[in-house]
Amino acid sequence: MSQSCFADCLFILFGATGDLSKRKLIPALYKLIEDKKLCHFAIIGTALEPIDQQVILERSKPFIQNFKQDIWDKLVQSFYYYPMDFYHGTMYNNLKPLVAEVERKHNLTGNRILYFATMPQHFPTITKFLLESNLVNNQHTTSPWTRLVYEKPFGQDTQTSQALNNFLNQAFTEEQIFRIDHYLGKELVGNIALARFTNRIFEPLWNKDHIESVHISINETLGVELRGGYYDEYGQLKDMIQSHMLQLLALTAMESPGELTAHNIRNAKAAVLNSVVIDDVVLGQYEGYKQEQFVNPNSTTDTFCALRLFINNARWQGVPFYLVTGKKLDRKETTIELRFKKVKCLLTYCPSEPNALIFKIHPDDGIYLRLNSKIPSSTVEVAPITMDFCHSCLFGPNTPEAYETLLADVIRGDQAAFIRADEVEASWRIVDTIANKNYTLHPYAQASQGPVMLKSLYLPSKEEV
Amino acid sequence: MSQSCFADCLFILFGATGDLSKRKLIPALYKLIEDKKLCHFAIIGTALEPIDQQVILERSKPFIQNFKQDIWDKLVQSFYYYPMDFYHGTMYNNLKPLVAEVERKHNLTGNRILYFATMPQHFPTITKFLLESNLVNNQHTTSPWTRLVYEKPFGQDTQTSQALNNFLNQAFTEEQIFRIDHYLGKELVGNIALARFTNRIFEPLWNKDHIESVHISINETLGVELRGGYYDEYGQLKDMIQSHMLQLLALTAMESPGELTAHNIRNAKAAVLNSVVIDDVVLGQYEGYKQEQFVNPNSTTDTFCALRLFINNARWQGVPFYLVTGKKLDRKETTIELRFKKVKCLLTYCPSEPNALIFKIHPDDGIYLRLNSKIPSSTVEVAPITMDFCHSCLFGPNTPEAYETLLADVIRGDQAAFIRADEVEASWRIVDTIANKNYTLHPYAQASQGPVMLKSLYLPSKEEV
Repeated sequence: MSQSCFADCLFILFGATGDLSKRKLIPALYKLIEDKKLCHFAIIGTALEPIDQQVILERSKPFIQNFKQDIWDKLVQSFYYYPMDFYHGTMYNNLKPLVAEVERKHNLTGNRILYFATMPQHFPTITKFLLESNLVNNQHTTSPWTRLVYEKPFGQDTQTSQALNNFLNQAFTEEQIFRIDHYLGKELVGNIALARFTNRIFEPLWNKDHIESVHISINETLGVELRGGYYDEYGQLKDMIQSHMLQLLALTAMESPGELTAHNIRNAKAAVLNSVVIDDVVLGQYEGYKQEQFVNPNSTTDTFCALRLFINNARWQGVPFYLVTGKKLDRKETTIELRFKKVKCLLTYCPSEPNALIFKIHPDDGIYLRLNSKIPSSTVEVAPITMDFCHSCLFGPNTPEAYETLLADVIRGDQAAFIRADEVEASWRIVDTIANKNYTLHPYAQASQGPVMLKSLYLPSKEEV
Repeated sequence: MSQSCFADCLFILFGATGDLSKRKLIPALYKLIEDKKLCHFAIIGTALEPIDQQVILERSKPFIQNFKQDIWDKLVQSFYYYPMDFYHGTMYNNLKPLVAEVERKHNLTGNRILYFATMPQHFPTITKFLLESNLVNNQHTTSPWTRLVYEKPFGQDTQTSQALNNFLNQAFTEEQIFRIDHYLGKELVGNIALARFTNRIFEPLWNKDHIESVHISINETLGVELRGGYYDEYGQLKDMIQSHMLQLLALTAMESPGELTAHNIRNAKAAVLNSVVIDDVVLGQYEGYKQEQFVNPNSTTDTFCALRLFINNARWQGVPFYLVTGKKLDRKETTIELRFKKVKCLLTYCPSEPNALIFKIHPDDGIYLRLNSKIPSSTVEVAPITMDFCHSCLFGPNTPEAYETLLADVIRGDQAAFIRADEVEASWRIVDTIANKNYTLHPYAQASQGPVMLKSLYLPSKEEV
């Protein structure tokens, strides 16, 4: 990133008293100020709660690294809080004079970012009132621009996501809409396509001729914690597969997009999502889930979801992709592993493990390559070795947080890391296909690897695509 | 290696008082005793010098790691010294009773290894007298077997190497003849073929479609030291290119040999050597070389040799191979680097360096892969990163010395790491082609990278093959 300031803008943050704002968004804004990217700006936070604006900011302090008073002061001087009920249209009209005053006071030119960090069911209502009150400049993509940022989940199924897209696309151009998935802001995720396309050795191997299987895993150790109310209506399939995991799949499996523009990348990702064929599914629920706070005692919500799927195109014909994610598992780890085909044995040189290229996204950012090497002094044995490239080791611990990267992208108008309408809908179609089949829900022990049935997923597939 | 004993055998070591015996062979025998590989054996050392046998062994003590008195005692109890003039036939007849006595005393069954650690000009004479005195069982490849080990250089040019091969092949089968090149005993060299053929990700890339150029370098910081007399008659082309470097080239460039048998590997290496087309040559001599001890003051011997060559087959069509080696250079390093083709720039993502797979043979054994990765927080830059696999880090510092591995191979009768007659002759043909062209000899400063003319070698080639 260059050291020059971004364009001026006003953030209007819906859900300013929520957890996301506290832990991620306000610290990310602080960091952009510190990095001298955010120079001319102001923030109006809104939420239902009547609360002093200083209190809101104070809550974020523990989440700021390398606190500096002068940076903090800049944030405080540019932050305004306006309590409002999102369902009262008049409140939006009252918000207008504040917006005008803040923009005048901070010499802003009218660029606005509307950030929806609220419960997803409020998205349509807030958007509708914003339009009616003329707080947003619809169809304005150039100066002054208006951009809308929606947190996930975007819709609850194919129908609701389509309805929301249709509603938004009538009022706004797709260039104004930023559907966020914070996984796409993570350094290593941004690096998957770059690693593949800037390294001459990877792309020739990135297909069915060389790859045996692809494994995408997001393993969590936590349960639903305080999110039981929201979570119980979604479950792992709709909360994790629909968003993060299908995006990781799309990024990993996409065709070469040519130049890495937002348009090209999103075309390539949508093509993958539209070619997914679900082959087998294992759903699970951890023991004790029904006793969690805010969870229905008779809940049939999945807290574990594993898929075997195929991508019905020439590149991936016959290569199984395994997507596995769950809560209360034995380890916290997010990885993408491309497992290469085995080689035939050369006399006694029989590699025990196939080669693999592994992107570790959590807890350690890094790229790993599993190879085989001769064991010294042995003439007969080959052992697996791992070459690694630790991101934080090489580039230092100052890797930006996902939200810092994503907010910077919004201000700069770069949509490459945001999800387009057709991608969201394709993802929901995949998820609905699974949800509608009523797969058996298998119980599993906490701190385990998931349901024992998971093993069946790795047996030869039922139907070859 | 298993822990069981090798077959019993008697070593007859010609040149027992020389540097190679002192520094490498005796310590290697010690190590094989320590490792319980060499259990039933005896050693008869011979050389011109009348000297006490204990003195010879004492000289090797400083070169033994982790000295243990009980192992040393076993070596002392099995070592005999017999001073002789290699040019006196009667001496060989006098050697016979000693051999018989030692074999009887140590319960040996008649397996014999004749090790030629002498000046190469003595090879034919010693071999002839051994045959005449019936000290060697010609044509005996099974029990009891006779094996002959010849140090490099094997011949001085195509004609002399052919003559020596013809002479040996009349008396012995090729299975009895072990032409040694200690580079082939190094762990990493043995690993080149294994790395390629046991890793599914390398073999598909190992050709002209993906590789831009191959660079094989043996850089030395030392000069000729005390070897001026020998060296001045050979020079870098005949001393290093003919042996080590053309072998590294052959191992790197060979077609897949199928099963990794000695027969297959040596066929594949010979095919490479017979397909070499020399494209350009830069010879050099370091400043001050003519003043070195035992060197002709008007010497035109090369102490630096760099080649650009092509391999005239379908796999390597148009790919330049650079072989560079010299004395008194700025660093001590032996590497094989396969440099991959560049990728086209993706918007601003322009990798500055191409991918490379690097085998470091000296000073640090290891395999390196140079890749590109996104620089964190930068949206526009890609930086080269290196994944490495350090051999000694993973497998510990107990990697066997080359001679230990090679002596074990001789006792076990494994010829994979030894050079076959046709390989030697093909190498000499390549070297003679260059030697006969009388290339200009460029002076170069000590502790430099070689002659400035070296740069010209990397310009587009004169003739595409």
